Amino acid sequence: MKTLIVGQSGGPTSVINGSLAGVYYEAKKKGFDKVYGMLNGIEGLLKERFIDLDEYFEDENNLELLKRTPSSFLGTCRFKLGKIEDHEDTYEKIFEILDKHSINSFIYIGGNDSMDTVENLSDYAVSHKKKQNFIGVPKTIDNDLPITDHCPGYGSACKYIATTMREIVQDNSCYGDTKPTVAVVEIMGRHAGWLTAAAALAKDDSCPGVDAIYLPEVSFDIDNFVKETEELLKKKSNVVIAVSEGIRTEDRRFVCELLDTNLQTDAFGHKELVGCADALGRILRDRLGIKARPITLSTLQRAASHLASKTDLDEAFNCGKKGADLAFDGESGKMVYMDRVSTNPYKIEYKVFDDIHKIANLEKRLPLEWIDVENNYVKQELIDYIRPLIQGEVEQIYKDGLPQHITLKK
Amino acid sequence: MKTLIVGQSGGPTSVINGSLAGVYYEAKKKGFDKVYGMLNGIEGLLKERFIDLDEYFEDENNLELLKRTPSSFLGTCRFKLGKIEDHEDTYEKIFEILDKHSINSFIYIGGNDSMDTVENLSDYAVSHKKKQNFIGVPKTIDNDLPITDHCPGYGSACKYIATTMREIVQDNSCYGDTKPTVAVVEIMGRHAGWLTAAAALAKDDSCPGVDAIYLPEVSFDIDNFVKETEELLKKKSNVVIAVSEGIRTEDRRFVCELLDTNLQTDAFGHKELVGCADALGRILRDRLGIKARPITLSTLQRAASHLASKTDLDEAFNCGKKGADLAFDGESGKMVYMDRVSTNPYKIEYKVFDDIHKIANLEKRLPLEWIDVENNYVKQELIDYIRPLIQGEVEQIYKDGLPQHITLKK
Repeated sequence: MKTLIVGQSGGPTSVINGSLAGVYYEAKKKGFDKVYGMLNGIEGLLKERFIDLDEYFEDENNLELLKRTPSSFLGTCRFKLGKIEDHEDTYEKIFEILDKHSINSFIYIGGNDSMDTVENLSDYAVSHKKKQNFIGVPKTIDNDLPITDHCPGYGSACKYIATTMREIVQDNSCYGDTKPTVAVVEIMGRHAGWLTAAAALAKDDSCPGVDAIYLPEVSFDIDNFVKETEELLKKKSNVVIAVSEGIRTEDRRFVCELLDTNLQTDAFGHKELVGCADALGRILRDRLGIKARPITLSTLQRAASHLASKTDLDEAFNCGKKGADLAFDGESGKMVYMDRVSTNPYKIEYKVFDDIHKIANLEKRLPLEWIDVENNYVKQELIDYIRPLIQGEVEQIYKDGLPQHITLKK
Repeated sequence: MKTLIVGQSGGPTSVINGSLAGVYYEAKKKGFDKVYGMLNGIEGLLKERFIDLDEYFEDENNLELLKRTPSSFLGTCRFKLGKIEDHEDTYEKIFEILDKHSINSFIYIGGNDSMDTVENLSDYAVSHKKKQNFIGVPKTIDNDLPITDHCPGYGSACKYIATTMREIVQDNSCYGDTKPTVAVVEIMGRHAGWLTAAAALAKDDSCPGVDAIYLPEVSFDIDNFVKETEELLKKKSNVVIAVSEGIRTEDRRFVCELLDTNLQTDAFGHKELVGCADALGRILRDRLGIKARPITLSTLQRAASHLASKTDLDEAFNCGKKGADLAFDGESGKMVYMDRVSTNPYKIEYKVFDDIHKIANLEKRLPLEWIDVENNYVKQELIDYIRPLIQGEVEQIYKDGLPQHITLKK
C-alpha cells in the first residue's frame, strides 16, 4: 500500500489546480493506492485535516473541472515551518501524523517558502531515519522562482493582463481627440516587473498597445512621470500606462506611501491611503487637468481561469505529473522545473533540481537589459520570452452561461 | 443612390459594435449604396468627420472582428444637441452636411441622450421639410432605458460580473478558516442596481456565490453594514460582498463622500478621496480588524468582449439590423426595442417605439419588489430576469494567444 499526500501553499494562481490534477492523475496511474489532499497546506496537516482525493476525482469529469477552477482547491496557507532546530516539536508532530496514516510521499505545490518547507522536511526525514520522501512542484504568478525557466501560473496571468490591456486600450480611446484621457493600470508585482511587462504583449496589428510601462526595477520619479505623460498626450489624445504596484522613488519609498506622506496621515492612521494607480491618477488630474482613470487589476490577475493559457495549464499539469513520478520513485528534497530548450519552436523539458535550498533563498530577477528605461517600455527579448507562455485557450465548461468550477464539499 | 450614416454615442459596451455590424450588414443587404460611419458621433459629424464603412467591412472577416471588438469602433461623444429653438444654427449645419453628402438616413446607437438627439433631428426634419429620416438603436450597460425589456450591452456586462464574482469567491476562500477575509467588490451603477444585481448569478451548485449585495435603491447604513458583515463572519470565514458604486446613506450622500468628510479634505481638495469599495474595506479593517480587500471592476465591465454573452451580441446585431430596416423604409423619430414575449423559453421580438421623447425622459428603475432588503440580496425574479441575457459564448478570434480586434486606420 503506497500513499501520497499533496498540498498547496502560498498565493493561488489560475492553474495551481492544474498541478494538483497532474499529481492526482499520475499518482493513480503510477500505482499509489491512496492520494490524500491536505487542507490549507501544512497548517491543515498539523490538524490532521485532509481528504481522500478519490472521493472527488475518480470521476474524470471532476478532474477536468479541477483544471478549470482558479484558486487553491485544497485551500492554502502562509505557514512557514522554520528551522528544524527551533521547531523540533512541529516536525516530530508532522511525521507522527504521516506515520499514523501510513503516508509514504509528500508533494507540496508552491513558491519559495514552500520549497523551503520541502527541503526541511526532507532533511529531517534523512537525519531522523524517516521513510517519507518530499517533492516540490513550483507555482507562482510572480515568476520569481530561480532555476525554472518560468513558473506555472505566470503565463495565464500574462494572458489575462495582455487581453485586459487590449480591452482597456479600446475602451480608453473611445472619445478620441474630443476628450484627452489617461488610464493608469496597476498590475501586481511588489518587487519585480515580470507581470507588468506582460502589458507590452497587447500591441499588435489590431491594437496600438500601451504607451508606457513603469517597472519596480527602475526608480520612479513623479515629476518625470508627469512630464512623460504630458509628452505622450502631445502625440495622442488617449494614453494607457501600465504601472507595477511596486514602483518606488529613488529613496525606496512606494509611490502610494509618498503621496500619503504629502497628504498627512488619515484619521485611521493607515499608511496605504490609496493604491499606486489611484495616487498617479490623482496626480495627473491635479497637474495636467485631464481625465485620468485608475484601474487596478487586483486578484483577477491570478484568478481569471476563464482566460487561462492552455500552454500554462498544460505545463502546470505536467509539472504535477512529474512530481508524482519523482514521489513514486522515492526521490526526496527535489523540485520539478522547466527547462526551455528552445524558444522558436517553443520547447520545454521537465527536469529535476536537487539543491532545493537555493530555490528558497534566490529570487529570479527581471534582467535589467530587457528593460527599455529611456522609453519606459520593455525590450523585444522580454516580449519574446513571454509570448510562448500565453499561447492557446482552455475550452471552458459552461453551464447556464457561466464557467463551472469544483469546490470542496462542506 | 441611397446613403446611410451611422454613429455611436455615450459610454461604450462590449457589444455596441455588434449593433454597428448589424446596421452595416442589413443596410447593404437592403440596398443602401453607401454606408458612412460618423466619427465620435454628432460631434464628429459637425466637423464632417466620417468614413465609408465599405473600406473596412466589405471584407466579411472584418465584420466578424468588429462584432468582437469592445468600445465604440467609430468613437463616441457625450455631445447633447439641446433644444431646437436654442441651437437653430447647429441643427442647420447638420442638415447642410447631410445634404452636401446626399445622406438620406441617420442611425444613432446610444442611450437616453442619444435618443433625444434622434427625436430632435427628426422633429427638425419634419418642421423644416428636410428629406432625411432618423432612427435610434438602444445600447447601455446600465439597463436604464425604458420601453425595451433590456438594453444590448447589459447582458455581457452581467456575464462578466457573474463570472468574475465566481472567480473572486474562489480566490477569496483560499485561506479558509485559517484567515478570515472579506472581499468588497465595487460594481458600476450610479443610480440603479441593475449591474450589481448580476453578482447574484454567481451562485450555483459549483459556487457558493456572494454573501451580500448592496444596491443604490436601498439606503446604506455603515454601522449596519459592519454589523451585518460581522454576522456573516460568524457563519463563514471568507465573505464576498458586492456593492454598487452608487450606494448612499439615508441623507443621500455617497459612501465615499461620507468617509471623505470624516477624514477631512485632502491637500488637493478632491472630494472622492477613495472609491466606495476602498472606503468600505478600510472601515472593515479598522472596526473588525480583519483582512478586507477592495476590488473595483472598473471599465472592464463594459469592455471585456472576450467574455461577451452570445445572446447579447446577437441581440445587439439584430437591433442594428432592425434599425437599418426602419431607415430603409423611411421611418423617422423611432427607436428599436426588444419585447420579451416569453422568459421560459426565452423569446425576444424586435419592435419599434415611436414616442421616442419618452426614452430620453424616463428611466427604467429596478423594481423594488425584486430586492430582498432584509437579507441584503436580490429576489429570484431578478435572477430569472437576468439569466437568459448571459447565455451563450462568443467564439473569439485569437492570434498569438490574444483576442483580435479591429481599429480605425489613422
